[in-house]
Amino acid sequence: MAGNEQAAVRVRETELKAFCVAVLQRLEVPADEARLVSEALIEADLRGVDSHGVIRMPMYVERLGAGGTNPRPVIRIVKETRTTAVLDGDNGLGHLVGVRAMELAIAKASEGDCAFVSVRNSNHFGTAAYFAEMAARRQMIGLSFTISGLLLMPPWGGVEAMLGNNPVAIAFPTDREFPIVLDMACTVARGKILVASKKGTAIPADWATGPDGLPTTDPAEALKGLLLPIAGPKGYALALAVGLLSSMLSDARFGSEIGETYFQAGTPQNVGHLFGVLPISSFEDFAHYKQRIGKAIHDLKSVKKAQGVEEIYLPGEREYLLLQERRRMGIPLSPAVFEDLRQIGERYGIELAAIGNGN
Amino acid sequence: MAGNEQAAVRVRETELKAFCVAVLQRLEVPADEARLVSEALIEADLRGVDSHGVIRMPMYVERLGAGGTNPRPVIRIVKETRTTAVLDGDNGLGHLVGVRAMELAIAKASEGDCAFVSVRNSNHFGTAAYFAEMAARRQMIGLSFTISGLLLMPPWGGVEAMLGNNPVAIAFPTDREFPIVLDMACTVARGKILVASKKGTAIPADWATGPDGLPTTDPAEALKGLLLPIAGPKGYALALAVGLLSSMLSDARFGSEIGETYFQAGTPQNVGHLFGVLPISSFEDFAHYKQRIGKAIHDLKSVKKAQGVEEIYLPGEREYLLLQERRRMGIPLSPAVFEDLRQIGERYGIELAAIGNGN
Repeated sequence: MAGNEQAAVRVRETELKAFCVAVLQRLEVPADEARLVSEALIEADLRGVDSHGVIRMPMYVERLGAGGTNPRPVIRIVKETRTTAVLDGDNGLGHLVGVRAMELAIAKASEGDCAFVSVRNSNHFGTAAYFAEMAARRQMIGLSFTISGLLLMPPWGGVEAMLGNNPVAIAFPTDREFPIVLDMACTVARGKILVASKKGTAIPADWATGPDGLPTTDPAEALKGLLLPIAGPKGYALALAVGLLSSMLSDARFGSEIGETYFQAGTPQNVGHLFGVLPISSFEDFAHYKQRIGKAIHDLKSVKKAQGVEEIYLPGEREYLLLQERRRMGIPLSPAVFEDLRQIGERYGIELAAIGNGN
Repeated sequence: MAGNEQAAVRVRETELKAFCVAVLQRLEVPADEARLVSEALIEADLRGVDSHGVIRMPMYVERLGAGGTNPRPVIRIVKETRTTAVLDGDNGLGHLVGVRAMELAIAKASEGDCAFVSVRNSNHFGTAAYFAEMAARRQMIGLSFTISGLLLMPPWGGVEAMLGNNPVAIAFPTDREFPIVLDMACTVARGKILVASKKGTAIPADWATGPDGLPTTDPAEALKGLLLPIAGPKGYALALAVGLLSSMLSDARFGSEIGETYFQAGTPQNVGHLFGVLPISSFEDFAHYKQRIGKAIHDLKSVKKAQGVEEIYLPGEREYLLLQERRRMGIPLSPAVFEDLRQIGERYGIELAAIGNGN
């Protein structure tokens, strides 16, 4: 998760958020929307998902600056029924478009219906978990799917990339302070290879191939090669299913269409997402649901532990604990990430202060 | 897929179906429902998913005979909105209950809504794909989740089973003769270990542990031990999410509640499922969807192939091709499975004829 934190530069959540908001505003993003995007972005850093937090700011900044992402999108519903909608993100930042889409799904579900909202003309939206958790806070099960804008995985049997890691998140409200959150990609997150690259550490041999198509432990080589699906053909099938859910219901890009545009910061990507909401109380009395999931959590936490394991964690629980800690102690950024941000700040005359010694 | 087919006993689809229908009828299952269950069961064998086909007949027969499964369930809706329902399977055979639940979800979605139906008091339902494909044949995306009635996987960090392999299936209609079908469990299918055990072949070392908690290649040892999640904590999180979706929306059993009953053939299991339907035409013109997914298939099939690979297959495509072949050539059963069926037949005075030499 955090890794080499001794060398890290700690920054307060509020400082980091103010910095990101100011940068986005300089890039013509309206204040309210800059806050919303920064909130989503920094929640990833708080939860220890460093690969999807401010490490990506240079990319967002570059695309906004080059005209590849629209800082002032007019997001609109292009097709709608009482339980479905297709949203056109007008090439806005993915975090913003995703929040709007999930808000719409939640609104549609608030009368007790299942609701799904598909999205086209969006961009990289950060962590899928963020949107699924929005529903979990409303006593609903949230589902969040996206197609990755970066082709890095071949279909099974191929040696040429045609799929992304295509993440899926599902969030369940619980009787505890944290929701249970599945948030997985169908490869190791490319962002983790980015983190390893920034930190200069090796990666396991089954994460990726180098440009020669052979497995590598060098993150720099891996960033030029292909990602391997988790669990072989299962990971291929899951990545494909998530990719189809995220693109085929909204006419977003798929496959080679994506490949043409990723490295062109000035070209819209037309990333697609799908968000779904299952209103628990239409199925079960919510108090009874909470009691049942509470018992499930208790059962899981009560099993005999492997040697050296002190506690069985639920998916999303460690992230919740880390969020509490980082809210108190600040967010540790790798020196390389801090330097990237500092340089962005310099360009726009915005300062980012680290937590000083003894603070 | 098929493996050691030289030694297999080939049986015609129609013969096998008639046999299963007759056996189920002897066990008090009404004729129409016996046909419906046998259809679902044998489709697994036709598609090469031997682990979920007639290899399971002895278990179904034993549970029906011992009163653990109800041959004449009165399946009823216990809670309902226009887009949701909770179905009580009255402890009927899972294939039957699953078909009824997916039919209800499809009916609810037929006016263009997303619809989900949760199920309690069901049993092992065979392959998740079967139900998801029902929706795909109706121009909808079908989703199918079940909690496994057999606890064989520990939560991450534990050494005591509290989760099943909890399969999920998602089926997409396409412009081809076959749908794209994700159908994955969060471990290697226990049925595959059963098949290896029947065939007497070794299993890979990362599928399971023996009763001592250490990895094993002996399928007989693995059947006494624990299954390992695919991709480590990702497989744990996915299995948990699928299990919660399948049980928490219908008050079905979870965790240790399941563990108490699996090996008692006379005791109801209260297995839960969840079925979902996304009506494509509410999002996209269906002809346009077909064109888009057709292009996606073309893109995937067109990538450069690894050495020795002749074709890139879509998930579900090989199964479709095998189904065509086995409809023509008969279904190859391992001698052990054939013998199990023959013994069941003997008990009820029903013959199962293999395809003779030269046939």
